[in-house]
Amino acid sequence: MIKKVHHVAIAVKNMDEALKLYEDIFGIKPSKIETVPQQGVKAALLPMSEGGEIELLEPIDQESGVAKFIESRGEGIHHICLEVENVDQELCMLADKGVQLIDKQGRTGLAGKIGFLHPKSTKGVLIELVQKDIKEKG
Amino acid sequence: MIKKVHHVAIAVKNMDEALKLYEDIFGIKPSKIETVPQQGVKAALLPMSEGGEIELLEPIDQESGVAKFIESRGEGIHHICLEVENVDQELCMLADKGVQLIDKQGRTGLAGKIGFLHPKSTKGVLIELVQKDIKEKG
Repeated sequence: MIKKVHHVAIAVKNMDEALKLYEDIFGIKPSKIETVPQQGVKAALLPMSEGGEIELLEPIDQESGVAKFIESRGEGIHHICLEVENVDQELCMLADKGVQLIDKQGRTGLAGKIGFLHPKSTKGVLIELVQKDIKEKG
Repeated sequence: MIKKVHHVAIAVKNMDEALKLYEDIFGIKPSKIETVPQQGVKAALLPMSEGGEIELLEPIDQESGVAKFIESRGEGIHHICLEVENVDQELCMLADKGVQLIDKQGRTGLAGKIGFLHPKSTKGVLIELVQKDIKEKG
């Protein structure tokens, strides 16, 4: 079951410029900035005070999905992430329903255990599922 | 001040098919479906149980922004909407900071009093601000 919109991810060319923009216009600061080598990105999470986050993604590998996204479409909204109770269980149920998946099993991501659905099955929308780390729950 | 991610809006060609998809794969049902003639769209709000919503937008006017978006980029994530306490005050502050705005003042939208920023000022991301109707607060 989907619990909530966990974050909206935005592909940016330059993380420092993007962080400055969101702080200047909205006063939002990052809670976490990390390099995620397996996804070829530097990522920052910008939480809102009452719920939901913006995730900024800067490619550090020109072969990464985010680099290719920016090359073909420019900077912009890259994916949405929905929070679930159990990501493996959810991916298994989706596979049973015939939904195409990028990840058949959950793997470690910036916000917890994650898995991506293929946009071919979701009308062009790249959807990530996340199961929050227990230490971050609440 | 930004309170939370209110919704993520997705441009779809066919509302009925999109509603069926989100119900089939995630079990999410719409809380509201309305035609918004001034934006040239039919819109549906799909709330998650613990926060955040997905908004589906089907163009009903081929000159609408959503129709043009689908024509040039295909179906996909169209904009994000951030909830604020006072939309007019926020738009005024943004204008003072030199942010380009689509709406200089709030107007009535599906989720409350809304206003759009121009993506030229936000690195290609179309951002809507919303101030929820008092009757819907809580």
